[in-house]
This record gives sequence, structure tokens and C-alpha cells, in this order.
Amino acid sequence: METKEARLAAIPKALSFDPASDRFFILDQTRLPTEEVVVEQTDVEQVYDSIYQLKVRGAPAIGIAGAYGLLISLKKHRDLDRDAFEALVHKNADYLNSSRPTAVNLSWALRRMVGVADAFPPEESTEALYAALRTEAMAIHESDIETCRLIGEHGAKLIEEGNGVMTLCNAGALATGGIGTALAPMYVAWADGKRFRAYSNETRPLLQGARITSWELHRFGIDVTLIADSVASYLMKLGRVDLIIVGADRVAANGDTANKIGTSSLAINARHYGVPFYIACPYSTIDPHTPTGEEIVVEERGADEVIYVKGQQIAPADIQVFNPAFDVTDHDLIAGFITEKGIIRPPYNFSA
Amino acid sequence: METKEARLAAIPKALSFDPASDRFFILDQTRLPTEEVVVEQTDVEQVYDSIYQLKVRGAPAIGIAGAYGLLISLKKHRDLDRDAFEALVHKNADYLNSSRPTAVNLSWALRRMVGVADAFPPEESTEALYAALRTEAMAIHESDIETCRLIGEHGAKLIEEGNGVMTLCNAGALATGGIGTALAPMYVAWADGKRFRAYSNETRPLLQGARITSWELHRFGIDVTLIADSVASYLMKLGRVDLIIVGADRVAANGDTANKIGTSSLAINARHYGVPFYIACPYSTIDPHTPTGEEIVVEERGADEVIYVKGQQIAPADIQVFNPAFDVTDHDLIAGFITEKGIIRPPYNFSA
Repeated sequence: METKEARLAAIPKALSFDPASDRFFILDQTRLPTEEVVVEQTDVEQVYDSIYQLKVRGAPAIGIAGAYGLLISLKKHRDLDRDAFEALVHKNADYLNSSRPTAVNLSWALRRMVGVADAFPPEESTEALYAALRTEAMAIHESDIETCRLIGEHGAKLIEEGNGVMTLCNAGALATGGIGTALAPMYVAWADGKRFRAYSNETRPLLQGARITSWELHRFGIDVTLIADSVASYLMKLGRVDLIIVGADRVAANGDTANKIGTSSLAINARHYGVPFYIACPYSTIDPHTPTGEEIVVEERGADEVIYVKGQQIAPADIQVFNPAFDVTDHDLIAGFITEKGIIRPPYNFSA
Repeated sequence: METKEARLAAIPKALSFDPASDRFFILDQTRLPTEEVVVEQTDVEQVYDSIYQLKVRGAPAIGIAGAYGLLISLKKHRDLDRDAFEALVHKNADYLNSSRPTAVNLSWALRRMVGVADAFPPEESTEALYAALRTEAMAIHESDIETCRLIGEHGAKLIEEGNGVMTLCNAGALATGGIGTALAPMYVAWADGKRFRAYSNETRPLLQGARITSWELHRFGIDVTLIADSVASYLMKLGRVDLIIVGADRVAANGDTANKIGTSSLAINARHYGVPFYIACPYSTIDPHTPTGEEIVVEERGADEVIYVKGQQIAPADIQVFNPAFDVTDHDLIAGFITEKGIIRPPYNFSA
């Protein structure tokens, strides 16, 4: 009989690393949902490109890709002396970091890698330093795998047989090095044998819910139904939604949460219909230095993301567009935060 | 100085009829927003096609197109004797009615036309009957123009200088023979010299808000901003929305209202943020024989409308989709109904 571990191992992966050969692979997410293409990453320019072009995306996954990308960029240069090798570590880390300058996890992971090189005993060989960097990259990856797994185990307790479980955007396996954050509870519950229905909001304008979440849940075998974002409220009215779990970009000290645009509308509709609304995120997403959502600056993106869909024009080319990347959901609409430390219930006080 | 009438005359038209030459024209809405093409309709097959292919859409506009379509189909046959001519009236009316069998306004308008023929004094000439049919078609059109104008005048009183006014889908000039229903108050307020900002929800899956509402408001000169549907709630949170006006497919006797999917989510968010939420519709949209929204059957449409956007695949081809065409908004979320008879305030009792 298939074990739970075997079932969970079948979840699609954003990236993978083979420690026997030091080979690094990513799933090219720009080709989803029509093609499933895994591409080996063999040089630093290619990894830069994969991050820049969103072939790999999602904060945790980008950090891990940066770490492995740096490692494989060093693989062929282990014959350099320590000084030259360390200079290359810095150079390639800076280069990779510039692929998405605002991605906090990318710079964090690269700083960890560079920190290993900077602190490495000078008497050790280049080969030994390379091995230490491999260990560090794998540790970053393993830590994320474990965080996702724990979020999944804690969150799975909220899902009951026959439930309807709704999500938005993609806080799934393909956004992380593991089984995701918002989708992790669904994967664990399904692997535990619970049967339920997932609802994926398509998530305009960039359609991560349609392109990625639907794909990964469907690929794994979870019963998933795709909806236009405007359908979510009506599904709740019909009584088909028992639970909503979404991810987070940033959580303020009072629990106010920035996440993909549309999150706060879901939360307000959930309150109206009495549906519990949860945020799933690594504990590190909580920022004790941001007192409330008021202090979170919402990024506005370009009009063309809304006017064009896959190159097809759907609105007047010169129309004004308001295109905020995310919104802030008030803490009092949130039933709990599903983290690797467990489910945190209100009242929230994450102050430092 | 330009008069209010002159300003209102500049609103884009779904269709037009020239009584001097009996020529009938429609704006091909399938070519919006990239091209503005007005096409003369010269035979009954062409009109059937225009309705079937949604070149003309919106309940009132389809009814008027049916009436004029029938008229121009008879134009070249005025030399027939009365019996042959009346047989042609019936044949062409049945044919046009089959272009969209579920469009209530289409069958209603065609029944009115056929009724004129059936009741016409047998001693009168074919030419005289044709003239009576022209008068009837123009009366159907004029009545809609007047209904829209009155909805506009009543609703315009709700709009104040500097307001943000939000709408969903297209209940605009291009859905009617006049200046629209939900958009009519905006046109009248703007023609009165009030300056405000309109927000158009793009309205997935068929994007009527992006393709049509944005286009017609922008074409007229109203300051309009397009948003993804999931942005509406956040705009309310920012305090930028003072008023929401949408159309209706059917209003039950207790005020529960069926309208484009996404309407009830807007209404719930409006309640949360204290934004007044109005329905604008002809009084005939109110159905006293439907007690509540519970009795309204919601049409479910095909998965491909969600999976493909202008032929581009945005989700797994075999994904399950829930695609309801509309939803039902509870009467207690509705601040009023803007009709040609004035603004109707709660409590609502439209029972027969």
C-alpha cells in the first residue's frame, strides 16, 4: 500500500537538486498549463534568466533557486584558488540578486551563501568551501521543505471529509521548495485519505490560480474546480465553501495581512457568509516591525497586465487602469494563521 | 454653447435607424474595443447573424434590432399582396426569434410587430401595413430611449461632483436603444457638467466591462478607470467609491436581484464599507410573479469561457470549471432601484 510519504512525494516540484551529481532542475512555469517542461540549469546566466522571466516564482522558491543557482555556477571553477573562487562567489551572487531586486528571499538566501564563503576558514581548500556551499544550499531547501510540511500538517486538521476548500493565487508547491503554504494543508489532508473539493480563484490579472494552482492540484489528483474571481461569493452563498486558505506577502504585528489582490474581498465575503478564512505562511512572513496594515505600501503595476491577456487586447489600448498587486486584509477578518509553529488564533500580537 | 441634448447625442449607439430611407445600422460589438465599425443591415439573414454572433447584445437592444430587422426584411417586398406579405412577416419574425431563443425582449418585440400585422385592417394596402410596422418599430425604440433617459435623470441626482462611481458588466448605451440603464445616470450627470470618476469592473469571464463599458464611457469622454474584478473591494477600502450602480436581469417581488456574476460580491463589499449599492433597470425588469431570489434559476455556462480568453488557453484544458452566468443579490443589500418611474427605496414589495 502506498504510504503517505509516497503520496506526498508525487506533488509537482518547482525545482529539484541531485546531490550525487550537483545537477539543478526547474519546472518552467511560463509554459504551464499547456506544457510540463523541466529544464536543467547549467550556468549562472540561465538561472538569472529563469528567475527574471518567472520560470521559477514564489518567494521561497526564488530564494532556493538563487542558492542552487550560485552553487552550480561555481561547480566548474573548483580549480580556482580560494581568493579567485570567493571573488566569483560574490560576483555571481550579486548578479543573481539583480534578477529580481525586490525579492526579499532571494537576497536573504544569497546572503546566507556568501556568508558561508566569507566565514570559511582560510586554510581550507576551495573544494571544501564548495562542499560547504552545497551543504548550505541544501539546508536552505530542507528548511523550506520542513516548514511547508509542518504548515500542511497543522492546516490539514482544519479540513474535513466532504469540505469545499477555496484558495486564491498560487501559494502552492510551485511557489516553494516543498509542498507549498496555502496548498500544503490540502496536500496533506488528501494524502491522509480525506476527500474534499478545492476551488481555485483564477486570480486576475496574472491568472496564477488558473495557470498554476489549478494545474498543480489537478496534476496531483485533488478534485479542483476553477472559478472566475467574481464567482467566489456566490459559491459561499450556495454553501459550497467550508474553509478558505490563502498565502501572505507580509503580516503586520497586529495581524493585518498583505496578499494578492482579491484577498480582502474574499475575506469580507467569508465574514458575510460565516466561512472561516485562514492565512497560511511561514512564521518569517510575520513582520513585527510593521505595526499595522496601514504601514504597508501596495505596489501598483502597469496597465498592460490588465489590457492584454497572453498578447490579446481585451480593453481600449489607452484606457486608464488601476492595477494594485495586492491588498491588505484586516486582522479581524482572519480566523487564524497556519504556520510551522502551529495555528495562531486571535487576538494577534506579533510585536517585537 | 453645447446643449445638454447635444452632449447626450454624442453617446455611442448600439444601433440606429434612418426613417427617411428606412436604413438600419448596428455597431459591431464583436470588433470592440480595437475597431469601431458600423454596419448597415440589409437583409434578414444578416440581422439574424448579428444577433446570433452578439454583434448586437443587451436585452433592450436585441429587441429593437429584432423589430428593425423584421422591418428591413420586408422593405423590398411591399409589392406583395397582403396575404403573401403577412405570411412573410410571420416567417421572418419566427426566423429572427430563433437567433436567440431565450432573449425575452426579442420575442416580446417581434410579438408586438406581428401583432400589428395581425390586427391591421384587411382593406388597407401592403404599403400602409409596412408604414404601420415602421411606426411600431420606431415606437419600441423611442420607448426604450425614453426609459433610459428617465433612468438617467433620476439616477444622476445620486452622483455628486468628485464622486467615484463603480459599475459591473455593460448595462450601457450599447446594451439598449438609448443611453443605457446603469450607465445612464453617469451620462446624464456628465452632460449636466458634473465631473466624477467611473470605475469599470472588467467582468470575467466574458469581459463586457473591459471590452464594452470602458470603451463606451471612454469614447464619450467620461473619466473611466478599468479594474480587475478583484480590485473593487480594495478601491472601496481606499474610500474611492461613493456609489455603485449596476443593471439587472430580473428583479423578484421582494427585491432580490439576478444580475451578472460578481454583482452580489460587490454588494457585500459595499455593505462592509458603507457604499450605497443601486440597481438601475426598466420597471419591466421587475417580475412580480417571482416571489424571491430563491426561485430564480441561475444559468451555468461552459468551461471554455473561463479556460480560453480570445482563443488563448489560460488553464489546463481538462480542468473542471464552475461558470454561473449570474448571481442573486439579496434585497437587503440594495439601497434602491433606479427606474423610469423614479428611485424605489426599501422596503421593497413588488408583488402583483
